[in-house]
This record gives sequence, C-alpha cells and structure tokens, in this order.
Amino acid sequence: MPKITREEVRVPADVLPEMRDEYITNYMKATRETGRLMLFACDQKVEHLNKDFYGEDIDIADADPQHLFEIGKNGVCGVVAGQRGLVAAYANDYPEINYLIKMNSKTNLVGVKQDDPYSPQLTDLDAVLAMRDAGVNIVGLGYTIYLGSEYESTMMAEAGELIAQAHANGLLVVLWIYPRGKAVTAEKDPDLIAGAAGVALCLGADFVKVNPPKPEDGRTPAEALKVASMAAGRTGLVCAGGSTVDANTFLTQLYDQIHVGGACGNATGRNIHQRSLDEAVRLTKAISAITLADYTVAQAMKVFNGEEDFTLEMI
Amino acid sequence: MPKITREEVRVPADVLPEMRDEYITNYMKATRETGRLMLFACDQKVEHLNKDFYGEDIDIADADPQHLFEIGKNGVCGVVAGQRGLVAAYANDYPEINYLIKMNSKTNLVGVKQDDPYSPQLTDLDAVLAMRDAGVNIVGLGYTIYLGSEYESTMMAEAGELIAQAHANGLLVVLWIYPRGKAVTAEKDPDLIAGAAGVALCLGADFVKVNPPKPEDGRTPAEALKVASMAAGRTGLVCAGGSTVDANTFLTQLYDQIHVGGACGNATGRNIHQRSLDEAVRLTKAISAITLADYTVAQAMKVFNGEEDFTLEMI
Amino acid sequence: MPKITREEVRVPADVLPEMRDEYITNYMKATRETGRLMLFACDQKVEHLNKDFYGEDIDIADADPQHLFEIGKNGVCGVVAGQRGLVAAYANDYPEINYLIKMNSKTNLVGVKQDDPYSPQLTDLDAVLAMRDAGVNIVGLGYTIYLGSEYESTMMAEAGELIAQAHANGLLVVLWIYPRGKAVTAEKDPDLIAGAAGVALCLGADFVKVNPPKPEDGRTPAEALKVASMAAGRTGLVCAGGSTVDANTFLTQLYDQIHVGGACGNATGRNIHQRSLDEAVRLTKAISAITLADYTVAQAMKVFNGEEDFTLEMI
Amino acid sequence: MPKITREEVRVPADVLPEMRDEYITNYMKATRETGRLMLFACDQKVEHLNKDFYGEDIDIADADPQHLFEIGKNGVCGVVAGQRGLVAAYANDYPEINYLIKMNSKTNLVGVKQDDPYSPQLTDLDAVLAMRDAGVNIVGLGYTIYLGSEYESTMMAEAGELIAQAHANGLLVVLWIYPRGKAVTAEKDPDLIAGAAGVALCLGADFVKVNPPKPEDGRTPAEALKVASMAAGRTGLVCAGGSTVDANTFLTQLYDQIHVGGACGNATGRNIHQRSLDEAVRLTKAISAITLADYTVAQAMKVFNGEEDFTLEMI
Amino acid sequence: MPKITREEVRVPADVLPEMRDEYITNYMKATRETGRLMLFACDQKVEHLNKDFYGEDIDIADADPQHLFEIGKNGVCGVVAGQRGLVAAYANDYPEINYLIKMNSKTNLVGVKQDDPYSPQLTDLDAVLAMRDAGVNIVGLGYTIYLGSEYESTMMAEAGELIAQAHANGLLVVLWIYPRGKAVTAEKDPDLIAGAAGVALCLGADFVKVNPPKPEDGRTPAEALKVASMAAGRTGLVCAGGSTVDANTFLTQLYDQIHVGGACGNATGRNIHQRSLDEAVRLTKAISAITLADYTVAQAMKVFNGEEDFTLEMI
Repeated sequence: MPKITREEVRVPADVLPEMRDEYITNYMKATRETGRLMLFACDQKVEHLNKDFYGEDIDIADADPQHLFEIGKNGVCGVVAGQRGLVAAYANDYPEINYLIKMNSKTNLVGVKQDDPYSPQLTDLDAVLAMRDAGVNIVGLGYTIYLGSEYESTMMAEAGELIAQAHANGLLVVLWIYPRGKAVTAEKDPDLIAGAAGVALCLGADFVKVNPPKPEDGRTPAEALKVASMAAGRTGLVCAGGSTVDANTFLTQLYDQIHVGGACGNATGRNIHQRSLDEAVRLTKAISAITLADYTVAQAMKVFNGEEDFTLEMI
Repeated sequence: MPKITREEVRVPADVLPEMRDEYITNYMKATRETGRLMLFACDQKVEHLNKDFYGEDIDIADADPQHLFEIGKNGVCGVVAGQRGLVAAYANDYPEINYLIKMNSKTNLVGVKQDDPYSPQLTDLDAVLAMRDAGVNIVGLGYTIYLGSEYESTMMAEAGELIAQAHANGLLVVLWIYPRGKAVTAEKDPDLIAGAAGVALCLGADFVKVNPPKPEDGRTPAEALKVASMAAGRTGLVCAGGSTVDANTFLTQLYDQIHVGGACGNATGRNIHQRSLDEAVRLTKAISAITLADYTVAQAMKVFNGEEDFTLEMI
Repeated sequence: MPKITREEVRVPADVLPEMRDEYITNYMKATRETGRLMLFACDQKVEHLNKDFYGEDIDIADADPQHLFEIGKNGVCGVVAGQRGLVAAYANDYPEINYLIKMNSKTNLVGVKQDDPYSPQLTDLDAVLAMRDAGVNIVGLGYTIYLGSEYESTMMAEAGELIAQAHANGLLVVLWIYPRGKAVTAEKDPDLIAGAAGVALCLGADFVKVNPPKPEDGRTPAEALKVASMAAGRTGLVCAGGSTVDANTFLTQLYDQIHVGGACGNATGRNIHQRSLDEAVRLTKAISAITLADYTVAQAMKVFNGEEDFTLEMI
Repeated sequence: MPKITREEVRVPADVLPEMRDEYITNYMKATRETGRLMLFACDQKVEHLNKDFYGEDIDIADADPQHLFEIGKNGVCGVVAGQRGLVAAYANDYPEINYLIKMNSKTNLVGVKQDDPYSPQLTDLDAVLAMRDAGVNIVGLGYTIYLGSEYESTMMAEAGELIAQAHANGLLVVLWIYPRGKAVTAEKDPDLIAGAAGVALCLGADFVKVNPPKPEDGRTPAEALKVASMAAGRTGLVCAGGSTVDANTFLTQLYDQIHVGGACGNATGRNIHQRSLDEAVRLTKAISAITLADYTVAQAMKVFNGEEDFTLEMI
Repeated sequence: MPKITREEVRVPADVLPEMRDEYITNYMKATRETGRLMLFACDQKVEHLNKDFYGEDIDIADADPQHLFEIGKNGVCGVVAGQRGLVAAYANDYPEINYLIKMNSKTNLVGVKQDDPYSPQLTDLDAVLAMRDAGVNIVGLGYTIYLGSEYESTMMAEAGELIAQAHANGLLVVLWIYPRGKAVTAEKDPDLIAGAAGVALCLGADFVKVNPPKPEDGRTPAEALKVASMAAGRTGLVCAGGSTVDANTFLTQLYDQIHVGGACGNATGRNIHQRSLDEAVRLTKAISAITLADYTVAQAMKVFNGEEDFTLEMI
C-alpha cells in the first residue's frame, strides 16, 4: 500500500480554513500516512470495569494500567484511545503516542433490561483542547452512540456538536456506534450495521467503529460488511476486535474485513492488552502490518510469532 | 410562470436589516427565482437507516452516498437537504449545489408504541454558520417537528429558536411537520395537516413540508390540501414525496398539489435517489419543470423520458 | 373614563431607570392611554390548530391568517397577540398594530389524561428584542402558565425570568394563567382563579388573563371575579373571551366584568376573528368602546350594529 | 439585649473582600443591629394561593396585597420576604422596608401523593441585583428546600449556587427547609429538623427557617429545638409561625424558642397579615419586642394590646 | 517513610503549565509532603443528617459543628473535607487547616428502594476559586459517584468536568466512589471495588476513596484491596473509615490497607468526630502516624493512648 500525501487527504468542509494544516497533520499521524486506522482501544476500564484487566486467562501485567501505555509505546499503533483522565495521568511519560480522547463512557452495571444505555460526555471539548495546548499529542476524539436506545437523541446531539467543534479545531473524530436497547433485537444485523455506518457519515465522523455484522443469509461477515462500508461513504469504517481469540483467527478476520469488506482499518482492545507486554507488542505489529502495509495473514503471523519485526519505517 | 424579482421577495420582519440582501439572495437561489421550492431530501440515511438505499428495487448506485450529490449536481433542484456532517463530507467537491442543512434527525428504531418521537438537534447554528463562512453554499436550514408527540414542546422550542437565529443570519428555514405519537390516531387527517401548516407559520418558517392529506369525505387530496395551504398563510407549503411510485403518478400528484392544492413546490427523496443516476437526474428535471416552470404533466413526462431536456435556463 | 397621563403610569421597580420612558410609552400604547387593556388574541393557530379558523359557523375569511391582521388594522384594539413567527411574517405590512409577542404555545393534541400540560417558550427574549430593534412595533410579551400542572415549575421559572428581562427592557408582560392538570378538578373555581391572579402579581406581570370564574354559591361570575381582581393587586386582571357567543351576551359579560368584577379590560380571540372582516371590525370597536371608553352595553351594541362608529379618537 | 457592632458581625469567607461592607450593612439592617432576625413572610400568595388571604376569620384588608406592605411600613420587622415580582410592584412606594427576595415558589395544587415537591427558582440572581442597583432596598434572598423530596437534588444545587452568588454580592440568604415527600413520614421529627438545620449550615445559609419540632419523648418543642440550634452552628435558626393562633400562645412559643431553644429570631406570615392593619402592626411590634429586645411575654402582650408602643428606637 | 520532594510529585498533563507550581504546592500540603493522604471527612451533616453528630454513644461535643474544626486545628490531618458553605462559615477562624471542598452531597432520606442515588453538585467551581482567591486555604475538591446508579451518567459527567477544571486551576481532586443502586447487589464485591478504582483513574482523579472490599473467596480484605490499588494506577486509593469501632481494630485495618493492600492513605469521619475533642485529636495523630510516618500499630496505639505525642514535625 503506497503512502498517501498531505495533498491527498480529503478535508471535510467543516474544518475551518486556518485549521486545515492541523487536521491534515493529525490525519497523517493517526493513519501513519496511509489513510487507514489502527486504533488501540483502551477505554474499557470504565466500560467493562476491572474484568477485562484481571482474572483467569489475562496476563497479570494487565492489572496495572501502565501496561496500556507500554504497549502503545513499544508496539505499532495508529492511535491509543482512552478517557481524558487516563491519558492525562500517563501522557507526560509517553509523549510519542498519538492519543485519541474517548469523550464518553459508562459502566456495564445497569443492563439493558433495567434501562436503555446512555454514555455521558465526560468533559467539554475545551478541556481536551487545553491539554493539547499544554503539549499532549492529541490527534482526535472518540464518542460512543447506542443507536436505538431511548437515549439515542442525547448521544446523537452530543456527537453532532462534538464533531463540528473537533473539526473546527483540526481534530479527527471516531464514532463507536452500537445498536443497543430494548428496541434492538439483533445488534449485529447487517442492515443495522450498515445503517450505523450511514449515521456516522451524516454526523460527519472521520471513522466509525462498528461490530462485525453477522449475516444469516449465507453471506460471509466480510461480504456483509462491504455494504456497510459503502453506506459509510467518505467515513472510514473499522470493526471492533471483540473478545480475545487466537491470533491467526483474529488476523484472518481483519484481512478479510479490509480486503473483502472494504474496512479502513481496525479497532482492537482486549485482544491486545490481555496479553503479556511482549506478546501484545507483537500483536500490534502484526495488526498494523495488515492494516497499514497490506501484509498477508501468513506474513503477519510471522510478525506475531517474532520471526520478523515490523516497524513504522516499514509502512 | 414568470420569475420573480428580488424586490418581490417578501422578507420576514425578523431578518435583520443588514441581512436582508443575504436572505433575498438565498431565497432567490433556493427557489430558482420563482418563489417555489424544489427540495431534494437526502436526510434518510439517519431517518430510515440503510433500507432506503440498498435492497430489492433500489438501484445499486444508491448504496454509495455520493450518488446523492451526483444527482444534485447533474439534475435540476432548488436545494439538496442533508445533515451537516453529510454535507461537510462532500460539499467541497460539489460547490454548485444549494445546501439546506437538516438540523435534527432520529432513527426509526424506537417505534411510537415504545416511546413518542423526538428528533434531536445535532448541532447549534454556529457550526452551520462557520461552514457557510468557510465557503459552503448553504442557503437554509431544515428541522422536523412531530406534532402531538409527548416531546412536541422540545421540538417546538428548538425550531422556534432556530428560525429566529436563521432569519437573523439571512438563512431560510423549512420545517418538516408530521403529526405523530400516541395521541395521534390519523396522521394524515386533513384538519391536522392544516393545523401543522398553521403551526409552521406561527413559528416563522419560510416553507413547511407536510404529508399529503388523506380526506375521507369525498374530497380529493389536492382539494383538502388547499385548506392547509391557506392555513399556512405566507409560509409556502410543500408535500413530501413518500415512497417510490411510477413517474407519471408521481408527477400528476405534484401537478395537482400545486395547481389545485395551492402547494408552493415539493420535497422529494426516495422517489429520486433510488433510481439510477441517469433516471434520477431526469426525474429531478421533470419535477422542476412542473414546480418551477409550470409544465403540464405530459410535458414533464417527456422530460422524464429523455425526449426533451430541462435546464435552469428554461425556467 | 378620563385618559391617564404618562406621570400616572405606575412603573414597577424592575424596569431599569434608562427604560422607564420606553415602558411608559409601551403602557400608554397598549392601553390606549387608559390603563385598560383590549387584547385581541391571535395565538390559537397553535393552541387549537386549524379548528378555530375553518369549519362550520366560521367565516371563510378566517381560513387565511392575514384576516387577523386586517382586523387588527381596521378595528380598534389595544394589542394584537401572536407568536413571534406569525408577527414576523406580516408586521412589515401592518406597522400600525401594537404587537404583543406570545412567547410560548402548545397544541391541543396531547390531552390532560395522557400528560399534564406544558407550553414551551419558543424563543429567548433576544429574538424579540432584535425584531423590536429592527422596527417592529412590539410593546410587550405574553406567556401561558398552567397552574397545577406537573410542569408548573418549568412554566413558573420561564415566566419569572421573562418578566424580569422584559421589564428590564421596557416591555409589558401579560400572563395567561389557567389552572389545568390531573390535580385540578374545577378549573374555574373562584378561589383558584383568585389564586391565579395572585400568582401573576408575585411573578410581576402587568396584566393577567384568566378564565371567568364559575361560582357555585349563588354569586354571579362578576361578583366572584371581584375577589380575583383584588388578589391581583397592581396587576391588571382581564378575562378570556371563550368560545363564540352572540354579541349582546358577550358585551354584557364584559361590562359586568369591568364594572362589577374589577376587571381591567378583556382578551378576546375567537369571538372576533371567526366573523367576517366587517363584523369582526365592528366587534373590536364595540369591545373597545366598553373597555376603553366606558360605554354602556346599549351604546356598544349600536357600535357593533354599525349604527355608530367608534375610533381611537373617541376614547 | 445589647446591640452588636459592625465589627462583631461574623462575615462568611465566601463574601468577597470588596463586598464585606455591603454584607455587614445588610446584616445590620436585617437584624436591626441585634444579630436576631424578625422575618415577615409574604410569599404565600403563591404557596397557598388565595386561601390565606380571603375567607372566614381573615380580615378583609388582607384581600388586597398592599396590606402586606402597609404592615411592613407601619410595623416593626427585620425583613419583609416576598417574590421578586411582588416586591417590584410596590417597592417604589415603600422604600423604607428591608426586602428579602424569595427566589423560588410553588403552588399547593399538586399534592405529595401525586408528586414529590419541587419549588422552582423564578429568576436568576442578576434580575435581583439589577433591582438593587436600581435602588430597591434588597438585603437578602430566600429559598425553600424540601428535604427528602425526589427533587431534593435540584433544590440543593439551586440553593448552593444562589448562596455562593449572594454572598459574593454582599446579600444574606435565608433557607426555608422543610422535610417533605413520599420518603418523609414525620415532617416535624426533632432529628429531622436538626438535620435540616445542619444542611443549611453546610450550604452556607445565614439563617434557616424550620418548622418547630414535635418531640414524642417527653421533651418540650423548645428543648428539642435546642439540638437543632446546635446543629445549625453559625447559621441562625428561626421557626416558622404556622397557622394563626391567639397572640399570647404565639408569643409564649416564640419566647421559649429563643430562650430555651436557642432560636435566633422568628419567621411569621399568616399570624400577622390575616389581622386588620392595626392589629397586625401591633403584633409585629410585640414579636419584635421579644425577638430584638428580649421583652418578656407579659411585656410583649402590653405592646400587642396597645398599652405600650414599641419602635426601632427601643431596641 | 521518607518525605518526597516537589520534583517527585507526578503532575497530570491536564494541569496547565502556569498552574504546575500551585498543583505541586497543594499536593505537598494535602499529603504533608509524603504522597499519602490523611483525609478527615466532615461532610456527613448532609449525608447522614444529624444522626452522626448527636445521640447515644456520641460525645456531646459533636453536636456543635465547630467541633470538627477544633479537631482539624488541634489534630494532625492532611485535609479536612467539607461542603463549601460549612467551610465558608468557619474558615476565617481556622486558617491553618487544608480544606478540601466536597462539591456534591445528598441526604439519606430517599432510599435505594425508592430511587437510585444521585448526589448533586452544589455550586460550580467558580464559587470555590473565588473563596480561594479571597484567602481560604483550599487545596482540592471532592465529589461522590454512585457507580451503577441510574444517575451514574450525570455524576460521571459532573466529576469529569470538575476534575478537568480543578487540575487546570491547580487543585487536587478526590473522588468518593461507591457502587450503589438497584443494579448493584454486592456493594463491596472486590471486583466492583477494583472497577471503581479504575473509573477514578480514567476520570483523572488524584485520589479515590472506596469502601474496603469484602472478599468471599478466602482472601483478606487487604489482599483483595491490592487488586483495586493496582487498578487505580496513578490514582492513589484510600479506604473509607466506616462506622465507629475501637481504635486498635481501626488502626490495624488501616495498617493492613496500606502495607498489604497498597492503599495510599485513609479517609475517616465518624470514627474521629464522634469522640471528645481530646480523644479525637489523639486518634487523628495515631492515624497520621501510620499513614504519614509508617508507624506500627503498637506505636500508633501509644499515640492514641496519649503516651507519646505525634506532630507534623515528626513525619
């Protein structure tokens, strides 16, 4: 995959003229000059509390949040996504990471049976811009919308406003969009996933993170994903990594998402950080090899197995 | 239909004096100097998710959102209406289109049985004005009110404030008003449609988009529409196009809405974009021929069938 | 009834010193220099939708909203009350009318059995002040409170803030106060009407519009009204006109409200605008003759019947 | 009781340095230079509608709201408490009164069985400060909290913010705190009253108005009140006067509240204004004689009976 | 335990550069230059009303709120935590205390069975900054989140914004996080406590106060606490003191929390203030001896028993 040039970056019309350069720089950083996104998701300490970080089958290294930043520093990622407070606590010691501030978060304590999900915005954008001005390497924002929730309207409004403000200030925005709520019977229905992708475009997101669709009509997930990628239009679509599976399965899915499903990258959390630092670092490299440098699965497995290295310079 | 002059444009009293020229310019652009509105509705990617854009009987071209902008560029429309983010993604490549920013949107996942509808405002007006200042050709705003919803009050308040601000800044406003909610048993009752038209006037809208009334007293829909057009007073009334029907039926309805029902134009989405680019372009021209140049249905059908062309110069 | 002088106008202490003159001017305009208010209510296109304007027993002229302004121009009224958008659409062509902007409105679609009433504020005051600055002859504001509604608190707060801001800017305020909601069993109970009048005073309104009380203890409505007028203190009390009745009954009620009940004027809508322009104009004159010039009912009937004219000069 | 000096006034640390003098002046005015508060409560026209002002056993003078101001002018009070609008209507004619603006109010139409109580703030503080700047003699604010209501949080937040702003601007604050709501089974439980007093302190109120506790353990109300007075710490505690009782009973209770219960004054409404002007004036003097000048009940009864006069000069 | 230097203080990246010195100074004050926190919790007058301050087994001194400040002055604490109003009332007389302003509070009247808990923010931060500017020795803020409440989102958002603002202004933040609500069946489940600790980190808190976990798998509370301490990452974890127990039990628990559980201090209220001034002062010294100077339990008991003194100079 050839790199793209600054001139090839398509700048949305809501990026203010004086912020075009900043936006292009952030886009080039986040995509490692490829137009594709490798997002390391580190926001689960709120979303899943401590269960994703400590317990059976999870490396003990993951119990300490610094593990996330060590992976971000030593691995190959496009952006590390975490809440503003988490990033503020460690960023001074990990200045080389591209940070994406996850603007909203909720715990999983109240289930859908009790109440439809709403994930609140944790600060206004000014707090993020101040951190950027103070030197933290923030390239963009993230926000989760639960489509079909009875609180959909609040999240749509918060996301809509955030995207406008972020673009006006030269920042990228990634939307996490998950259909969820009493009205949603099949969260991974392909039509619904494609609908979510279209919503992201209408809100103006640069990228949208969705769950891989589960078609029940004989199509493969990647084939079904292709419709969603089209629906996303100029918004790049990436899939959530989901719970931990073996590396080969994971990388094969990713390859197909990109080369069959039209995905523009990936967004992976647990699959990476629940491993030891060394293994996690190797997995980020294997993922990035596929996402950012069009490696085959076999080539990427060599990277994961430590038989080859993969660095930013190899993109 | 003779064109109108700038002097004939009736400027509402809430357009600030220094914005009168801007308002008149936007009004002349949106109505192609006729006082009538041909609105191409492109906001359904949120409202109807992907079902309006992909599936049986829908041309595959519609799966890619760029289709909407190609129609807008190659066809003849007054305005193309879409959410701010959607417009921001494509406007730089389609600068000739007159954009109407649809300020609120909701999905159709939560039905009326579960909760009454509320469509949230996605950004404040400042975000739209900034885009206009950055060069996007925005001539007005749209906003949907579900009259009779338990959330009617929120939408009335958001719409009321938006119209005041929009006029103060020289922008037109089109209200979509649909009676809907547990309290509404007949959404297309002629009295209710006429009521909706009157509400639009009281809020100060320039145009109101309503569903065509379904009278049960022997009157034709167009006859019933006449009462609504009167109730709208100086607010121009246009009807929603509804689901896709054959072109002749569609154009006949439109003709009657204007010449019997007193409508001031039309607002059409699916009927246009679910067709191939070529056919969609021809349909916009046929619609505009009736709306903006008082063609007969037969004449307009010739345009639709490609036997004659229709361009802006022919208005 | 002798006219009052500017010096006799009692200016509330929340009118800022630099706005005293403006307030006095508006008070003199609205009351036609009498201290009494003849308010022509034109806000029902939202409140009652189109049913007050079109149908059996309603003159067809009322189907066109311009009818309201023609009456306002050709008749004799103190103020014409309508929503901001309605006024904005016609005010440039009817500059001689004294406008009172009705700041909130709701439709009647959701009934009290479904939900208690809340009437939302449609814009902030700035939008109204901008229109005034642009030359529209706005002398005051109106706001409806449903006392006893579960949303009473929101309306009390909106009204309280509006009155403070309006006075600070030299505008009058008329409150419409109707007890309504699941907690209210008798909306026209004299004690309740008197309570509503006292609430208006505590909020700082200049005038309060209430429904005429329906006493069940042998007192006449006008006698019961006297208690409410006292409770209103320095806030002038006027009664709503209600549904259309014959002119003689209507004028007799009005006379008694003023001369027995201590009312300070009247607020009439349907009784006026559902008639033909000519008849409606004569009714405004008959009403004003009683309200502003202390005519007897018999004298006023001559005005209504066209046997005598009544003009502003005759006050 | 010796008067206190300006130096003895304990100024809270949230009074901005440049407003210390203003605060001390207001404190000295409100307490008539004694540190004790005689508050004449005139906010019931909203709270109790017209039932407290008109009817059997109520002097007809009370039907006219001006009665309240006549009492305030001719009697001896520390402050007269009323809503902003009420004060605005009369203050210019009664400039000598110390006004305390009651910032929130609700009617009694919706009972606790239907919904827990919330009393909305009627304007922001700016509206009050503007009136003060325009010359109205405003010395402080009042706000009611219904502790234990499901809306407790909203009232706590409004009160907390108001107190901070009021002190920053040199105004006193009196909180009315009444435990009320579905969760409250005994509104006058001594522990609960003491708890309310502590809440007032934590919010930073200068005085707190509570209902007299009703102990069921053999203690007298005044003995139980002592615990609440201690819990209030540096916030002065005063008791509500309640419904009208004979003067001797009332004054005896007041004496005990102060001399046994540690109360810092009193807050009385109906007991005063439901009487004729002459009797009401004498009662304010009798109350003030006890509150502000440590009279015995017998001495105070002489004042009430008109056998002795009591004026500000006698404090 | 050696003291730390100003250079060793880890300053979060959201502390604005010009406020770094202020933050470090506040951190050094609050932790008495040790990095550990001894927090004397004085916010229960709202949370528990008067029951924590008056009654059987509570020293009568505790009935007067000044008791809290006397302990703070004469004992050894890191910070005294109380609501803004409480601190404003006494701070001028107790200028040597380090104050932590508890920004939100609720009473315990409405139980979880009736409604999930929400604790409202009582003022915005400006009110606190103004007090600091006026000379009150405020070093930080506190805020309570009930994780798993249906109102979790509101508290997460308020806390998130407060922390960003506080850090921007050089103030520390301590979060109280208690899982509570209908969705929470075991409030002290170790996984949940660890989850709470992680949430505090993601929000950017400097310290988090949690309840000690109650493991049911054979681990001691302190062992279970260790997982939570790890999950908290760079946020220091301290445990709530709970209801009053004997000093030896209390100090032993504290010792284990720090030396086994990885706690960074303690947060104690009732255990201290329900005692006489002398005993309470001695308990603060014993607690601080363990927390700030690594005393053994036996050594600390000597301090509590008055056999040895402990002062700030001995850290």
